[in-house]
Amino acid sequence: MKEYNVAILGATGAVGTRMIQQLEQSSIPVKQVKLLASPRSAGKVLQFKGQDVTVEATTPESFDDVDIVLASAGGAASKQFLPEAVKRGAVAVDNTSAFRMDPEVPLVVPEVNEDAIAQHKGIIANPNCSTIQMVVALKPIFDVAGLKQIIVSTYQAGSGAGQTAIQELDDEAQQHLNGEPMTADIFPVKSEAHHYPLAFNLLPQIDVFEPDGSTHEEWKMVHETKKIMLGDMNDPKIKVNATCVRVPVVIGHGESVYFEVEDNTNLDAHKVQELIKHGNGLVLEDDPAEQLYPQPINAEGHTDTYVGRIREDPENPGAYNLWVVADNLLKGAAANTVEIAEKLVEHDLVRVPADYYGKE
Amino acid sequence: MKEYNVAILGATGAVGTRMIQQLEQSSIPVKQVKLLASPRSAGKVLQFKGQDVTVEATTPESFDDVDIVLASAGGAASKQFLPEAVKRGAVAVDNTSAFRMDPEVPLVVPEVNEDAIAQHKGIIANPNCSTIQMVVALKPIFDVAGLKQIIVSTYQAGSGAGQTAIQELDDEAQQHLNGEPMTADIFPVKSEAHHYPLAFNLLPQIDVFEPDGSTHEEWKMVHETKKIMLGDMNDPKIKVNATCVRVPVVIGHGESVYFEVEDNTNLDAHKVQELIKHGNGLVLEDDPAEQLYPQPINAEGHTDTYVGRIREDPENPGAYNLWVVADNLLKGAAANTVEIAEKLVEHDLVRVPADYYGKE
Repeated sequence: MKEYNVAILGATGAVGTRMIQQLEQSSIPVKQVKLLASPRSAGKVLQFKGQDVTVEATTPESFDDVDIVLASAGGAASKQFLPEAVKRGAVAVDNTSAFRMDPEVPLVVPEVNEDAIAQHKGIIANPNCSTIQMVVALKPIFDVAGLKQIIVSTYQAGSGAGQTAIQELDDEAQQHLNGEPMTADIFPVKSEAHHYPLAFNLLPQIDVFEPDGSTHEEWKMVHETKKIMLGDMNDPKIKVNATCVRVPVVIGHGESVYFEVEDNTNLDAHKVQELIKHGNGLVLEDDPAEQLYPQPINAEGHTDTYVGRIREDPENPGAYNLWVVADNLLKGAAANTVEIAEKLVEHDLVRVPADYYGKE
Repeated sequence: MKEYNVAILGATGAVGTRMIQQLEQSSIPVKQVKLLASPRSAGKVLQFKGQDVTVEATTPESFDDVDIVLASAGGAASKQFLPEAVKRGAVAVDNTSAFRMDPEVPLVVPEVNEDAIAQHKGIIANPNCSTIQMVVALKPIFDVAGLKQIIVSTYQAGSGAGQTAIQELDDEAQQHLNGEPMTADIFPVKSEAHHYPLAFNLLPQIDVFEPDGSTHEEWKMVHETKKIMLGDMNDPKIKVNATCVRVPVVIGHGESVYFEVEDNTNLDAHKVQELIKHGNGLVLEDDPAEQLYPQPINAEGHTDTYVGRIREDPENPGAYNLWVVADNLLKGAAANTVEIAEKLVEHDLVRVPADYYGKE
């Protein structure tokens, strides 16, 4: 059996540590694992399958002899190091937004567009957390009835902003409970001028603003959904309208999804339930009589996407509502990344083509 | 100058205590205030304009000589006592859902349908908190461009479930921060079989479920909006689709509102901003460059409705997004109730007609 050397770039972060766990549980035969991070985190000792692994500072040479790279160290690190890794023969699965809209880079959610993996030139992009769980939920409906329009409002957990953001949310909550003023240094966006508390509050800004008044997170949901479901980031066939809001939850994004299908002939709420129930990577949690519906505290630690509150809109035939919850650090990031790597291995696609990404 | 005896039913609750404050600050000339509650709360001493007032247990005779009743002691108490108050010549403004859909009872948000007050037969209903802030925000747009469709997802604060619910949310947050399991006895709905923690979680259930899979809170948003804006709870002219979610915020509901206008000829995002800026009871907070947008922690304690994140949908001409925040206990409840009472006084409508509500 072929075995692979796997490097995890950003191994000490909220997503990186989960990539290690997901890799441990994956079907990928791992020969050796290399844990890479910034010089600040170098020397830290983490575990892989019970063995100590010392974190190394990332250099281009770190990728010599590496077969698969799983990256989640921020867009700048991916832009700097992934072409270096590919040049050295590694295939990279990138969890940052650095390459998602690059026409030469497949953007993949295995349950939705697994076939796109085969087109890779060394880099495969993992979509944004909020996009992934939505397209997983809509995929079985899209397959049987088509989609005309999606209107989504997100309820996104603080951990999407990383490990230090989780601590900030906890600190703010404790300050509030102590009757002290809350202090904020990270939310809504660390690099921006103003910071606001998230604890017991709502922040309708995730990522920076676009010129049209949408946030970049909302822009991502619109264009990533089109690229994943239709193959083209600007395809007008499915209209997507997104509003992204950060909520004081640690782990687990919620999404209120309204959608209209192209052909409602054979669809109703019960049929949508059946499609979700048998959909890939989906768990149906939809029983009002038992007060059963998806909740972040139940989704935490799991790689499935949970769907409930399925309703027909009585005033708009062909329109439905869903409530979708997933662990944003797992299905929204680490788990999806490792699943892509599993598919690479399964289809023997762990090799860069002659016209690899960034070849001069 | 005419002076009025005012009774507050449910005076010790989260809304009732705010009704006292709002009444203190109102233009209503108050001769005497009577604070009514359940026998359990009787004897408690509260203050009105610096004077001690002892809370009394409510009986039908409590309303002898009362001119105006402000009620927020639950639907059962309103059903039991408000007809008794009206029979004794008092006009009641009711914050519960008991009479909202009664065709003989006006459902009023002064900024939207003040004229409906004149049709009262002794009882005027105050809408649900989540409905009020949405219709206040949409009113100036409705007036100039009409509305075809509203799709709203709410982010509702825990205080909507009352004073004990606020304590439960705080307790759960502290348990979570201490690393202890969270205990839940109130959320999502006290009378229901199952209770789930709200702290660091999301609960897509507010109020009980309807047979069609929507919650009663969602049903209220649909039908109250139609009754307030169109005069008929079932008018199909404006389609309304609502998803209501409880979030771990203490005070201040957020709403992600998507709407389509009837006539987009003279409208764009900038014009919507101008309409909001000059709308009644509205504050425009919409400057992405300055990261200015409505947040619950800023709305708390204020009676205005805050609107921002105004965007045109580039794929749906005539469709817009708004983010709306208001203090659910003030504009969503106590302040709107007292504003209705102010209008009653202003227009000399504090008297019950011969065919008063409930006359046998």
